[in-house]
Formats: sequence, structure tokens, C-alpha cells
Amino acid sequence: MTKGVTITVQTQGFSDIVNITEQVQTAVTQSNIEDGIVSITAMGSTASITTIEFEPALVLDMQELLNTLVPETIRSRHSETWGDDNGFSHMRATLMGPGITMPFDHGKLLTGTWQQIVVIDHDNRPRNRQIRIQVLG
Amino acid sequence: MTKGVTITVQTQGFSDIVNITEQVQTAVTQSNIEDGIVSITAMGSTASITTIEFEPALVLDMQELLNTLVPETIRSRHSETWGDDNGFSHMRATLMGPGITMPFDHGKLLTGTWQQIVVIDHDNRPRNRQIRIQVLG
Amino acid sequence: MTKGVTITVQTQGFSDIVNITEQVQTAVTQSNIEDGIVSITAMGSTASITTIEFEPALVLDMQELLNTLVPETIRSRHSETWGDDNGFSHMRATLMGPGITMPFDHGKLLTGTWQQIVVIDHDNRPRNRQIRIQVLG
Repeated sequence: MTKGVTITVQTQGFSDIVNITEQVQTAVTQSNIEDGIVSITAMGSTASITTIEFEPALVLDMQELLNTLVPETIRSRHSETWGDDNGFSHMRATLMGPGITMPFDHGKLLTGTWQQIVVIDHDNRPRNRQIRIQVLG
Repeated sequence: MTKGVTITVQTQGFSDIVNITEQVQTAVTQSNIEDGIVSITAMGSTASITTIEFEPALVLDMQELLNTLVPETIRSRHSETWGDDNGFSHMRATLMGPGITMPFDHGKLLTGTWQQIVVIDHDNRPRNRQIRIQVLG
Repeated sequence: MTKGVTITVQTQGFSDIVNITEQVQTAVTQSNIEDGIVSITAMGSTASITTIEFEPALVLDMQELLNTLVPETIRSRHSETWGDDNGFSHMRATLMGPGITMPFDHGKLLTGTWQQIVVIDHDNRPRNRQIRIQVLG
């Protein structure tokens, strides 16, 4: 059994981190599937899905880490070739991957106490991001 | 069809790497599901699941790499704000993600010859880690 | 419901990036499953699956990034112990993870316009890589 829904999330880019835990829980609830997994995927090549303790200090830490590992100013043949200046966005997204799966039980996500599900939008401009939430059980 | 089990794994922190391949295989076997995938997820925001050739030299290499990319001494507003000194643990976990899915066939995990499934606990203290193993087929 | 297929992909190593989107779409189509997810996993400890805008300039960017984060020349106790000189390959694979899941709907992968599914083979020699494509719905 499977039920899927595509949501749109407004993001600001530059590894903006948006909490979508509530939308994922709603998709699980509305699927009427009791036990299983939910697959959450960014439909695009410059965003990632992961989990984090979603609080402002750690959000800044994570953005700073990404800018250390893959700086906005990193040399990019992609940016040079296509002139869209978002080579760093693509590299961050490919490094982190496009999605995760999370388990649920009795209709409730099995996240840790401080663990939220987030989109990280690495692109270099605001986007309306399509995220697929596919529930299976 | 799905069957889930939550296991507890004792870990030492600082990206301690613990082999859980046998527990995952047991969960697959006990599910009586023949073919499908198993989703393995750390229920918490300072641990990751991945695969590795689990031998002591590579375990040390991997820990040293994580300490190069995200040093224990990295500046962290999260640590400064909350005083729990595990900002680096959160950053490593968010970078690597909370889980993986692995395929199985005829009741056997389809891992490579040298590929084991591991928990990496990035926290800065020993933990009893809750890991969800959800089998689907 | 689930259907699985194992494909073999020829790779050159050193984080060679090979587009397998078409093979994944074929597996989804041949499964006759309409809606669900497909789990794509490298059966081995020196390769990863992720998504990327698959164009030559970005492929070079990504390989250069991996060589910056985890240089081919990085000190490796694994390489020193086993003499196979591919410690960096293992570290890259463990960092990025062995696989991803992608959603599909009406038999079509729900990838973004510029988003392709790729194998990245981090090993230090050409390989015939076994990739498991498991469709669930």
C-alpha cells in the first residue's frame, strides 16, 4: 500500500533550512497507513532532505559548516559554463543526497525527541520547492 | 507488508562506529518477508547510519576524516547557547543523514562482500541508541 | 508489492560518475507497479548513489570537491594495513552513503527537470559494479 503527496515549500536559498516535520506527519496521518516508512525527496538537483535539531543556533552552525566545506565562492566549471553561479548549490546537494526515509508506527513518525525533518535549499535564490512525500506500509 | 523492530545499541560517542549488520539480518529473517527493502534509522539527531568495510584500521580512518571535516573543536553557536558541547555531533549527523535503506532477496541482505551496516554515534558521551529497523516487501 | 533487479555498471573509479536514470526508469516500468518508491543501492563499500544535474562541467566540479574533502593522497591506515591504496574510496563511500530512494507516480520517476540518478564509483580501479534496484508500491 502506498499514498503520495507533493508539497510546495517556499525557501530562501543559500542552504536555507525549513522544518517540514508537520507536513510529513500530516501526510502519514492522511494516508491511513498505520505502520511503515515515509520517503521524503527533493524534486530538484539543488536541495537536500535530512534531520536536525531545529533551533536557530544550530541552523546557523550548519549553514556555516556547509559554507566551509563547499564555499559559495568555490571555483565551479558549471557556473562558468552556464552562467548561473550555483555550482556550489549543486555540489552541496549531490554530497548530501536528495532525500531520506523515516519510519512510523501507529500512525506516528518515529523521530527522536529533538529530531526534525528539514529541507535544505542550497540554490542561490528563493524557490518554490516541490517535495515528494511517499508513504508506504 | 511491513514489520518493524526498535533495537538499542550501546555506543561510546565521538563517532563511535558499531556494526549492526547481524541485528538487521535478524529483523529481516524474523519478518518472514522474502523480498524488499529494510529501512534503518537512528532515532535521534546526533547519530547516522551508513555502510563501511568494518575493520579497525578503516574505522580509525573514518573517525579521523570526520574530525578533519567537522572538528570536535569547531565553533558552535548551538554549544555556546545550550552548553552541551555537542554542536559538532549535530553537524556530523545532519551532514550524513539519519538512515539508509538496504535491499534483500530470498530473506538475505544484498550487501557487498565487505559491506557492513553501521551506526555512527557522533554524540559526545556514551548513549543507549534507539535504532528503528523497518522491513517492507 | 515489490520487484527487484540487479544491474551491472562499468565504471572507471576515482569517483567516476555514471548516469543510471534510464536503467532505474526501465526497472520501474517493467515492475508494472504504478506508484511507490524505488530503492537504488550500490552493493559494495566503495561506491555511492546520489542525484546530480548530469553535465560534464558539474561532473568535474563534483570530482574536484571530493578530492578536496577526501584527497586521493589522504593518510589511510586501511591502505597501509591492506596495501590496496583505496582508503580514500572507502571514506568517500561511507560519508555519502550506499544508496537513495526515489518516488514514482503513474509509472514515472518523480525527478526534477535537471535531476539524474547516478552511481559514483570511488574505487581506485575500473569495476563492474552491482547495483540493486528494488521497486516497492
